[in-house]
Amino acid sequence: MRAVVMQDRKVRLAELPEPVPCEGEVLVEVLACGICGSDLHCAQHGAEFNASLRTAFGVDVLDLDRPIVFGHEFVGRVLEHGPGTSGRVPLGARVVSVPSLTRPGQPFLGFAGPETPGGFAERMVLAESLLLQVPEHVPTEHAALTEPLAVAEHAVNRAGLRPGDVPLVVGCGPIGLAIIAVLRMRCDGPIVAADFSPERRLLARSLGADVVVDPARDSPYEAWSKALGVSGSGVEGQAQVPAAVAFECVGVPGMIQELVLGCPPGGRIVVAGLCMRPDTFEPAQALVKEIDLRFAYLYTAEEFAQALAYLTDGAGMVAPLVTRTIGLADVPEAFDTLSDSPQDAKVLIVPGLPGDTAK
Amino acid sequence: MRAVVMQDRKVRLAELPEPVPCEGEVLVEVLACGICGSDLHCAQHGAEFNASLRTAFGVDVLDLDRPIVFGHEFVGRVLEHGPGTSGRVPLGARVVSVPSLTRPGQPFLGFAGPETPGGFAERMVLAESLLLQVPEHVPTEHAALTEPLAVAEHAVNRAGLRPGDVPLVVGCGPIGLAIIAVLRMRCDGPIVAADFSPERRLLARSLGADVVVDPARDSPYEAWSKALGVSGSGVEGQAQVPAAVAFECVGVPGMIQELVLGCPPGGRIVVAGLCMRPDTFEPAQALVKEIDLRFAYLYTAEEFAQALAYLTDGAGMVAPLVTRTIGLADVPEAFDTLSDSPQDAKVLIVPGLPGDTAK
Repeated sequence: MRAVVMQDRKVRLAELPEPVPCEGEVLVEVLACGICGSDLHCAQHGAEFNASLRTAFGVDVLDLDRPIVFGHEFVGRVLEHGPGTSGRVPLGARVVSVPSLTRPGQPFLGFAGPETPGGFAERMVLAESLLLQVPEHVPTEHAALTEPLAVAEHAVNRAGLRPGDVPLVVGCGPIGLAIIAVLRMRCDGPIVAADFSPERRLLARSLGADVVVDPARDSPYEAWSKALGVSGSGVEGQAQVPAAVAFECVGVPGMIQELVLGCPPGGRIVVAGLCMRPDTFEPAQALVKEIDLRFAYLYTAEEFAQALAYLTDGAGMVAPLVTRTIGLADVPEAFDTLSDSPQDAKVLIVPGLPGDTAK
Repeated sequence: MRAVVMQDRKVRLAELPEPVPCEGEVLVEVLACGICGSDLHCAQHGAEFNASLRTAFGVDVLDLDRPIVFGHEFVGRVLEHGPGTSGRVPLGARVVSVPSLTRPGQPFLGFAGPETPGGFAERMVLAESLLLQVPEHVPTEHAALTEPLAVAEHAVNRAGLRPGDVPLVVGCGPIGLAIIAVLRMRCDGPIVAADFSPERRLLARSLGADVVVDPARDSPYEAWSKALGVSGSGVEGQAQVPAAVAFECVGVPGMIQELVLGCPPGGRIVVAGLCMRPDTFEPAQALVKEIDLRFAYLYTAEEFAQALAYLTDGAGMVAPLVTRTIGLADVPEAFDTLSDSPQDAKVLIVPGLPGDTAK
């Protein structure tokens, strides 16, 4: 089958053997798979990625001596029930899954080798026990957003959002936009968002942000404080004073200090952006304001299921997140250009896209 | 009256006019007052202290153009009921209070000028409405620990400690030791503590730490993980997995990175140490472990009252915190030597100490 493999920092289209389902696994046809910022990052900085995760997981996630098949934001169609499966999800059903297998070694799908490919391939194997069936009315392109929405759902849960709290989303790339979408589904109050890119500010607005700021012209923190003042004055008799809750979705050095300085006392800052370089800030500023810096990276199976439930209940809301679909053959070029492409949010790979080379 | 004043970075004994109670205030005789690390800090770095707090409070806390009378950890005896008081606390009663007044401008006691002196003086005025009476059986020297214990109570509240969680206290100066004392009153499980000073390690043990580590010889983080493993294995059927909860009480650059690297995934780090310089850490490490960095600085009136309740219920437990009592005349010398004095924890000023110059 065709797949995109990464080795020695190069991403190329390749012909791979068909993956074979083990005990309790199913074979699926990949219908769509999103490209994630961490795919781009791992392609260029695999060793640093391994080093970062080693302290948390105790192992090297990427085996850089072998080809890796990326793709952890996939939607598949069940082609074959492997040995020891119950068949609870019928052949032909569309499915999503948290990107891991339950076989020994529990490979992270999208970060493993060609025997257990991620979604940048025509076919892949999934654990039957982890499958969630995609409801009929949810378009495949939206179902492919389940994983990034799970990341966003987790970030919002980490924030401990309470009624009246006012969120600020700094950075409207795919993670920031997914967080805006989840916030919109979860809260009625104003959502403030900021990004230097006009395209991304438009996307932020279409996903539900009420106040969208260009930091080159205006201060996101002033807009945030203003929204907070309005929220605070409208909740007389409420037990809790509304809190300022920021989501850092840029992931470059200096952002934490900027947010600490801009955050009102008692605010919570959820750091969702992955900053791979050392960063400097003034702890005394965070101390006197009693700020929480809560780092968010993963999600639970429940949060993943909740993300699919959002899509089931209000799928159309997240449509603007997908800005482009490409074929497998287009992936190498996309890897070269995507990190400097502010008009793109989520780019989906559709292996069967008309115009893509034949299977 | 006699008082210790600070001006132009110099601390000296001075003769001041008697403070005069305003509406709703009482005049008290100072029985004891602790020296806090922030007093030492403000004496040398008042401008930086103002700059740090300006972002949180919007004003300069210290008026550096005038003499300042430090001392916010005081115990007083009521000498006189001012105008408009109810007399609910009788003359002669021993009292503590959160260190602020309710008069216009709400001066922070211990950071204000000679008209509203802190506890480094023979007499001071307090707001009647904020007074808490010290129970008969609580020695004055212990009651003077109410304020630092309130700081510790707040830090422990910020940690969101749950049964089975294993605390690590890094740095056993006065704040770290007060946190150990509060932890001991609040939890049954093992408390791990670390300090380079043998004197402070002894104090940590006497205040209730179970595992006390010299970081020059052993890793506090290994001891912590080991205690966490034991705690985790003992709580079968418990809903929540025990979490690692650290208290950073050193306040120098590099500590946050050290704790992020040493902290198990999902851990919470309460930063209680005041680090006045910029600090560098690796956000990616905090991100992949989903760490919380919660900064703790202040406390509520409820936490202050709870601190006095600890002293009322188990006053003896905190006795080791007080390592020395000195007279007002000894304060200038103490300011010169205390920051480099590992054998000292809390030093109390007792204006009426025998041997101190006459009033």
